[in-house]
Amino acid sequence: MKEKVAIQGVGGSYHHQAAIEYFGDPNIQIVPCDTFKELVEFVSSDEVPFGLMAIENSIAGSILPNYGLLHRYELKVIGEIYMPIHHHLLALPGQKLEDLHQVRSHYMALLQCDQFFEDKKYIKLVEEVDTAKVAQQIQQENLMGVGAIASKICADIYGLNILSDAIQNNADNFTRFFVVQKETAHVEAANKASIRFELDHQKGSLARFLTVIWELGMDLTKIQSAPIANKPWAYAFFVDLLFEDPFQIKSLDQKLKEFSQDFQWLGTYKNGNQS
Amino acid sequence: MKEKVAIQGVGGSYHHQAAIEYFGDPNIQIVPCDTFKELVEFVSSDEVPFGLMAIENSIAGSILPNYGLLHRYELKVIGEIYMPIHHHLLALPGQKLEDLHQVRSHYMALLQCDQFFEDKKYIKLVEEVDTAKVAQQIQQENLMGVGAIASKICADIYGLNILSDAIQNNADNFTRFFVVQKETAHVEAANKASIRFELDHQKGSLARFLTVIWELGMDLTKIQSAPIANKPWAYAFFVDLLFEDPFQIKSLDQKLKEFSQDFQWLGTYKNGNQS
Repeated sequence: MKEKVAIQGVGGSYHHQAAIEYFGDPNIQIVPCDTFKELVEFVSSDEVPFGLMAIENSIAGSILPNYGLLHRYELKVIGEIYMPIHHHLLALPGQKLEDLHQVRSHYMALLQCDQFFEDKKYIKLVEEVDTAKVAQQIQQENLMGVGAIASKICADIYGLNILSDAIQNNADNFTRFFVVQKETAHVEAANKASIRFELDHQKGSLARFLTVIWELGMDLTKIQSAPIANKPWAYAFFVDLLFEDPFQIKSLDQKLKEFSQDFQWLGTYKNGNQS
Repeated sequence: MKEKVAIQGVGGSYHHQAAIEYFGDPNIQIVPCDTFKELVEFVSSDEVPFGLMAIENSIAGSILPNYGLLHRYELKVIGEIYMPIHHHLLALPGQKLEDLHQVRSHYMALLQCDQFFEDKKYIKLVEEVDTAKVAQQIQQENLMGVGAIASKICADIYGLNILSDAIQNNADNFTRFFVVQKETAHVEAANKASIRFELDHQKGSLARFLTVIWELGMDLTKIQSAPIANKPWAYAFFVDLLFEDPFQIKSLDQKLKEFSQDFQWLGTYKNGNQS
């Protein structure tokens, strides 16, 4: 059976690639969305059963607006995938590196590849809003002399050649994607949990909370504080935990109620981090 | 004496506005930079004495690449300013709201104002890479029917009218900027510190560290973990603390050495958060 999954961006985007890898199906049916908000609305209204959305990047950090959307639409995380981001330099067939006078891509992709272009001052770097759309544009408008920084499947989809592969500065650039559903689902062999909770600004409250996690033998893999709108000096925390036994989750659930009136299980799922 | 400060973006950007407010001088001399990297290079090479750079936004979260730049160039934080971000809808004089068929701005600004446009479907929202540059473009190309979402001083600089003010969804949208220098400076009445440290992935190490902060009577106002390139399962933490007595800083400095071989004082400075 073909899964149907809402992604951000057009075909060939890094979201598309992550969906193929997560579901293990190169022909997975995607529903391209212009914005993350559109994506969560599709899932929330039952129009599309799955959503796949970027939640953090090892270089840029957490995408807090997406945490906000999960919270607001009460979607459930049922899986995750960490995907190494390999940026490739694409152009029309027949074009050589020295033919290019301009390379267009998303701000973040240009930033992550700036060392490659340092000794190629004849190439002007131009910011665009979507990596895959640039590739599409080069094909449709037959743009000579213009390159795109994009994913490998972009080359396949839009008939472009890879002039230079893996041009990103940092080999360890990866993006983490959440797979979300409307309802909580039982996930086999779940060993990771994501929670959101609010704490008042009391000295030591976070230290006490982390001590509880430690005493339960759970392993913290991420912590992030974020200010809360309209609540000065109160903070929301996003925490990821590894666990071995569902009993730890039950204990934590009870303990959390002592610390915070407002907490939410974003989901329990299988750890996707292979590093 | 006029201060000279490197900012990201052109005149009229939110960085420009923050520089005016921080230094209390509407005629402050700015050095516009295309990228944050260019900005830190100006400061690091002594070409410009001050830099002012966004470090986090209440909605979007921390700008981790900028933390990375501070770490790499070893710049010192000597001040901060929290600035409420008020987005205004700007257009050429004489234009009315119903004349607009398109509004251009940065992805983040469009996101933060999407509720305002929900009942104005006749207006197409178009992503651009810089808020102030759109305003400049409207003036230079005399673009009728096109609006910009930008700052108030953009209206002044580029001769545009404010069609609607403070159109952002959330009244509590603010951006925090660091003021940086090349060398450590003594800051009068400093009561806030920013530190970066690395911890191995040991259960409980962060809980123990936070307990130390608590025992020293310091107040945690921010915590953020970030993966470290090429070091799987090791994390960098960015922490902000409020303190009352420089002695607390000295004690913490000693304690930190027990926890982490790799820590760095980003700076001690005056708390700029008035909320």
